[in-house]
Amino acid sequence: MNRLFAHLRFALLAAFCALAVLARASGTEPESTAALLRDRALADTTAYRLVESLTTDVGARPAGSAADGAAVAWAVARFHALGYDKVYTEPVTFPVWRRVAESASVTGPVPRRLLITALGGSVGSGGPLQADVIAFEDVQALQAASPAAVQGRIVLLTRRMARRADGSGYAAVLPMRSAAASIAARKGARALLIRSLGTDNNRLPHTGSVVYEGGAAIPAAAVSGPDTDLLERLLRGTRPVEVRLDIEVDTGARYTSYNVIGEITGREPTREVVMMGAHLDSWDLGTGAVDDGFGVAVTMAAGAMIKAAHQVPARTVRVVLFANEENGFDGAQAYAARHAADRASHRIAVESDWGAGRIYALRHVPADPVLTGRLARVLQPLGIALDGAEGVPGPDVAFVAKRGAPWAQLAQDAADLFDHHHSANDTLDKIDPAALRQNVAAYAAFAWLMAN
Amino acid sequence: MNRLFAHLRFALLAAFCALAVLARASGTEPESTAALLRDRALADTTAYRLVESLTTDVGARPAGSAADGAAVAWAVARFHALGYDKVYTEPVTFPVWRRVAESASVTGPVPRRLLITALGGSVGSGGPLQADVIAFEDVQALQAASPAAVQGRIVLLTRRMARRADGSGYAAVLPMRSAAASIAARKGARALLIRSLGTDNNRLPHTGSVVYEGGAAIPAAAVSGPDTDLLERLLRGTRPVEVRLDIEVDTGARYTSYNVIGEITGREPTREVVMMGAHLDSWDLGTGAVDDGFGVAVTMAAGAMIKAAHQVPARTVRVVLFANEENGFDGAQAYAARHAADRASHRIAVESDWGAGRIYALRHVPADPVLTGRLARVLQPLGIALDGAEGVPGPDVAFVAKRGAPWAQLAQDAADLFDHHHSANDTLDKIDPAALRQNVAAYAAFAWLMAN
Repeated sequence: MNRLFAHLRFALLAAFCALAVLARASGTEPESTAALLRDRALADTTAYRLVESLTTDVGARPAGSAADGAAVAWAVARFHALGYDKVYTEPVTFPVWRRVAESASVTGPVPRRLLITALGGSVGSGGPLQADVIAFEDVQALQAASPAAVQGRIVLLTRRMARRADGSGYAAVLPMRSAAASIAARKGARALLIRSLGTDNNRLPHTGSVVYEGGAAIPAAAVSGPDTDLLERLLRGTRPVEVRLDIEVDTGARYTSYNVIGEITGREPTREVVMMGAHLDSWDLGTGAVDDGFGVAVTMAAGAMIKAAHQVPARTVRVVLFANEENGFDGAQAYAARHAADRASHRIAVESDWGAGRIYALRHVPADPVLTGRLARVLQPLGIALDGAEGVPGPDVAFVAKRGAPWAQLAQDAADLFDHHHSANDTLDKIDPAALRQNVAAYAAFAWLMAN
Repeated sequence: MNRLFAHLRFALLAAFCALAVLARASGTEPESTAALLRDRALADTTAYRLVESLTTDVGARPAGSAADGAAVAWAVARFHALGYDKVYTEPVTFPVWRRVAESASVTGPVPRRLLITALGGSVGSGGPLQADVIAFEDVQALQAASPAAVQGRIVLLTRRMARRADGSGYAAVLPMRSAAASIAARKGARALLIRSLGTDNNRLPHTGSVVYEGGAAIPAAAVSGPDTDLLERLLRGTRPVEVRLDIEVDTGARYTSYNVIGEITGREPTREVVMMGAHLDSWDLGTGAVDDGFGVAVTMAAGAMIKAAHQVPARTVRVVLFANEENGFDGAQAYAARHAADRASHRIAVESDWGAGRIYALRHVPADPVLTGRLARVLQPLGIALDGAEGVPGPDVAFVAKRGAPWAQLAQDAADLFDHHHSANDTLDKIDPAALRQNVAAYAAFAWLMAN
């Protein structure tokens, strides 16, 4: 698709030359240019072509896999094709975790296949492991349980995730995936199963990373919603429910991937940068379309819109595609460590990694009335308000935010995100091209106003 | 759950004793009793408990599997527990087809796993089979293709199924699954892949039976919708798309299952029966909740409502749970052959096997104005009209219909049926208990009016 992108770039450039002359003549910069970028993005297909290419030509790209390398090469080539001024990579080294095989079944009181998936970072089971199941509603109930009840058993956590427009149901169940395995292990459990962190009722389990604490590690896997329902119904019977679990993983190797960075060089000597982030890696089950091919496409295309406008921004616009967000935040940590002492400090950092929904709010922008007035006026036609909420930085941006970098949030509707999140269902068809264009429009306009 | 069902039976019986006395006293039989059955069914949980038990305690029950036998034993025990007067089985012998293993992947231009499932009855691939893919929109386009284009390749059929309230989108794509394999085989294709016959965008392929014609047999499998999308995108590129397919099946054995029949004996000597059918078997991927645990529950519960009314119907009410509908209609054929010459002819035959939606129409009833008036009045509060459409018999009832038995159709809304049909997603959570109760109400009232 290289030729196609090159053609697109020149078409955009020609269109913007004309518009830029008009805007400069009218003296309403930078707001008028931001509005032009916004409107042009709403009619532009660059982002969709990017995520289509990433999911078709690369596909699933779990950190440390062959596809991780393919994704890095893809991103470098695409940044160049989109006309970015500077394209570079920064190494990120991390331990590799790879899913090899996984299966589970109910062996009693009735034989039944269960659809499960190992959590990222899970230890293997060392061959088949068979034990009775004991269920708890959530981590609190598990914490309250006596070790005698849990000892030698497989712990099942059953809490359902609530569907919320802001995706806040996720935080409420996240400890089941991230923290419960070590709690169960310390009570003598042999394995952990959790109801998938999802709002769907598909027989597709949702993966995500487990974090072991203090070396208390047992195999940990997510069960699909309908299969968890089945376990719960069986557990209401009088007979013990026995499950056989077999998880094989490959660990031990170290891998060097890269944060891939594209910049549109600013004209001013402050060397401040406006950073837009997303993560290039994905889980292995789907093709990483929504998480985070969408964010990759939004940020790359927003930068490309700015470049194609043929006006040099005052500050540098930097798009960072982070390595291994999903299973360790290694790219974000490497970036924060490397750039904390940069002379080129962050004017602002923003990240697209919260699904494929429309943006409804901009949060946590500097308290500058001229700037916020401009932002409010330019984003309002997109249905985006400065609603005064506190906001949260993206998962990668959080690491530079911790070191003091200013950040903002372009908050997306996440009502449907957890239907497909981290499951085999994360595929291109889940992306609404109109919502994607709205996101690009918001990022391009926001970045332009922050850069000028 | 036997005790639970027995308790339920006695509770129903007590309630109906009182109601029946009232109805007889009012002299409005049989319409008033039909209305009472309808209203009682709308508040009754028997059907939900039945389908919950069938999907929990038996689960997937493909014809010829160990679970096929478990399902027959389950049905016999449940008919007895529900108080049916006569419970019997009739043997049905058929060849067994069993899925052993299946996998597919794109091997070029990029490596990619494909989610597929073998069609029921497919031959195995005899180990891995690797070939270029050639795609056609549908069976017509395949038929028009030259053998030279198809020879040695894997044929992919890509037509999407349309979502329609009456489920008519299914008929339009069914030849891709049932007839295309032999057409492709005769042109020299090595295997057939089809876009799953479904209206969803889940990465869960939908199975269903393939029919080979004249011994022209090649491996045949369904690809999930998103995976078919991926193949189509790759095929738009310039490089050939190569797929590796490995299907292992087990065939050759013969198995004897049973049609399971429960009757409420009528009081009149005509020996006519009102037959309500459903099929007991299911595909192997899901748990056969919607297809056809729903129908099993509706018909069993409707008969149980009538029995519990403590009024003997004039004609016998017969519930037939057919063996192996999914992969050969063997139960239906055996039943038709055995009962074609019965003195006990069918007053009417009706079948529940079209998903888990609400019933909106009654079709193809005898042209008797007194009867149709009663049916219209009793079913109207359920949102069911005698809409005058021709209707179609159910897939099993079709075999007695062919031999002249009168049949009717209680037409269900099937707009969502093909989201889950024949896939791993056919699980209990897809059943709306209120829609289930509405179906039971309709079947009970209909059967009572036809039996009296």
